[in-house]
Amino acid sequence: MKTSAAIAWKAGQPLTIEQVDLAGPKSGEVLVEIKATGICHTDYYTLSGADPEGLFPTILGHEGAGVVVDIGPNVKSLRKGDHVIPLYTPECRECKFCLSKKTNLCQAIRSTQGKGLMPDSTSRFSIDGKPLFHYMGTSTFSNYTVVPEIALAKIREDAPFDKVCYIGCGVTTGLGAVIYTAKVEAGANVAVFGLGGIGLNVIQGARMVGADKIIGIDINPEREAMARKFGMTHFINPNDAPNIVDAVVQLTDGGADYSFECIGNTKIMRQALECTHKGWGRSIIIGVAEAGAEISTRPFQLVTGRKWEGSAFGGARGRTDVPKIVDWYMEGKIDIDSLITHTLPLDKINDGFDLMKSGESIRSVVIY
Amino acid sequence: MKTSAAIAWKAGQPLTIEQVDLAGPKSGEVLVEIKATGICHTDYYTLSGADPEGLFPTILGHEGAGVVVDIGPNVKSLRKGDHVIPLYTPECRECKFCLSKKTNLCQAIRSTQGKGLMPDSTSRFSIDGKPLFHYMGTSTFSNYTVVPEIALAKIREDAPFDKVCYIGCGVTTGLGAVIYTAKVEAGANVAVFGLGGIGLNVIQGARMVGADKIIGIDINPEREAMARKFGMTHFINPNDAPNIVDAVVQLTDGGADYSFECIGNTKIMRQALECTHKGWGRSIIIGVAEAGAEISTRPFQLVTGRKWEGSAFGGARGRTDVPKIVDWYMEGKIDIDSLITHTLPLDKINDGFDLMKSGESIRSVVIY
Repeated sequence: MKTSAAIAWKAGQPLTIEQVDLAGPKSGEVLVEIKATGICHTDYYTLSGADPEGLFPTILGHEGAGVVVDIGPNVKSLRKGDHVIPLYTPECRECKFCLSKKTNLCQAIRSTQGKGLMPDSTSRFSIDGKPLFHYMGTSTFSNYTVVPEIALAKIREDAPFDKVCYIGCGVTTGLGAVIYTAKVEAGANVAVFGLGGIGLNVIQGARMVGADKIIGIDINPEREAMARKFGMTHFINPNDAPNIVDAVVQLTDGGADYSFECIGNTKIMRQALECTHKGWGRSIIIGVAEAGAEISTRPFQLVTGRKWEGSAFGGARGRTDVPKIVDWYMEGKIDIDSLITHTLPLDKINDGFDLMKSGESIRSVVIY
Repeated sequence: MKTSAAIAWKAGQPLTIEQVDLAGPKSGEVLVEIKATGICHTDYYTLSGADPEGLFPTILGHEGAGVVVDIGPNVKSLRKGDHVIPLYTPECRECKFCLSKKTNLCQAIRSTQGKGLMPDSTSRFSIDGKPLFHYMGTSTFSNYTVVPEIALAKIREDAPFDKVCYIGCGVTTGLGAVIYTAKVEAGANVAVFGLGGIGLNVIQGARMVGADKIIGIDINPEREAMARKFGMTHFINPNDAPNIVDAVVQLTDGGADYSFECIGNTKIMRQALECTHKGWGRSIIIGVAEAGAEISTRPFQLVTGRKWEGSAFGGARGRTDVPKIVDWYMEGKIDIDSLITHTLPLDKINDGFDLMKSGESIRSVVIY
């Protein structure tokens, strides 16, 4: 079949909208009509050429929502008409990682996914007979895409695609880091470094579980208002408080119980660790640092009881947890609408990248 | 009263045995007759002058066992004749840290203890009218010492002082890191970096809780035999396996579930982290690094599920957990006798330091 898609031909170049060929789903695969997709920094990171594992030409996009239109052989958990969110972190429920119950990092299809291919080591996408790489196993910048069954979360049918697509990455990454990775308890004090989309979702996660002080830290004072709306109780601008560690320690009588780094800056990762409470503080790295950058601290920080951790896709098991997050949105427990500041048709997708780069949008969503 | 004690007059000088004056216990304090005390690397570290917080003149020693001979006013939990182990990490059961149930790092008397003083900011020790500093709140290199009630674990009376004194630091630090800090579960794979006294106690802790592979790493091949006796199942000499991370990963089908750094070398702390399993590996720093040294790694190690942590006094709550460890020794669940390679009278204490420095002893114990 043919589908409209945005192709990333080379690093650093704008996407172009093309009609591409899409082969039908093979065994264990599902054909999905994407109804909406967010544009995430990770798409931009790969498009910029900074991602050492980036492959071109490819169809980017990993934050989508849509409808199953066909299933390949041996697909058991989905059928035509099901509403789904593609998962760049799949959940096979059979690999050592899934069975460990200690991580969400299913490794069932990791090697082929990392090579831009479906699990049988081939691509479903091509143009003029030349294959295009899949991206993160999802390639949601295409009106139709093929995704492995284990990489699709089935969601309720009354959820609006143009909102819940954001759960495919940003919402879950932030909210999940609080709920699934850190398991923040009611009454805890939380520090959030960086008040972009991830930081705002960390904040509303902390509010949802009943955190006490929710301290936001950002050099951009314009982000304070939205963060307060999402549950931030205290705002610190590092330009006003040069020693951000001391500022958090003083606000929290000894340090935050949990901190979250939502920027990807290794110097700030250190601050995030060191502002947590002696004896039990836990600092969760969410942001993706530039290639080669390293974190460092004195080991005394850890020996005196702080823990340094990380979170990917919010520690969420996609097929299990993503449908629950959709429910929370539908029940009004979390706000997504305020975060989706722009919606665009596919042929304006480059404008969405520009809005993100300029900081003008929190999240731009492409609607097919 | 007068007591025999070993005085550390200055950094870098041998101890001298003197008759010193010891004032009786004040409110909340206890007079203890020390029957035996281990000589630990931390005593040497302070004596060497490398400890930036070291105070002189002082009476070192923090790994003792003895008998209560007098109690000050308001002491409720102890009486004359009780057998006790002094605790450099006290347990007041009233401070924010004790009540958190998340840490063993009681802070009730931290500031005065760090200044070499009893909680009322004075010293009980003096010589020729000049005060001597207490050390770690314990000063066990003295036949009699005064210790706060909250810094004494009451133990069973049939336990031999010259063995269970080692529970006052080394045994608990290693064993506790496994049991209280990491909470290693049966079937887990464990990597132990450094097979000195702490490493051997980590190993027997791992064996006690039913770990599967217990991998010891040390550049000294002479340490293999004792480590195997304590439960080590695999030995790696870094001189034979230049890439120690790969060697552990291969032995464990992806990485250790838990690793313990028992050396105090920041480069090895990094190896210890990176040899743990993607998704859930936890690396516990036990060793004390030199002042100013820093640990570092790529944040990707944490974002992909490894956790970097530390342990002090094995995460043990002294008054609660130390008596249990004494029981385990008496029940034969752990071996201490093999680790105590030398016993000495107080006037040979400098020989004990020499034995430790040369690596000839695992633990030397002074018997009064």
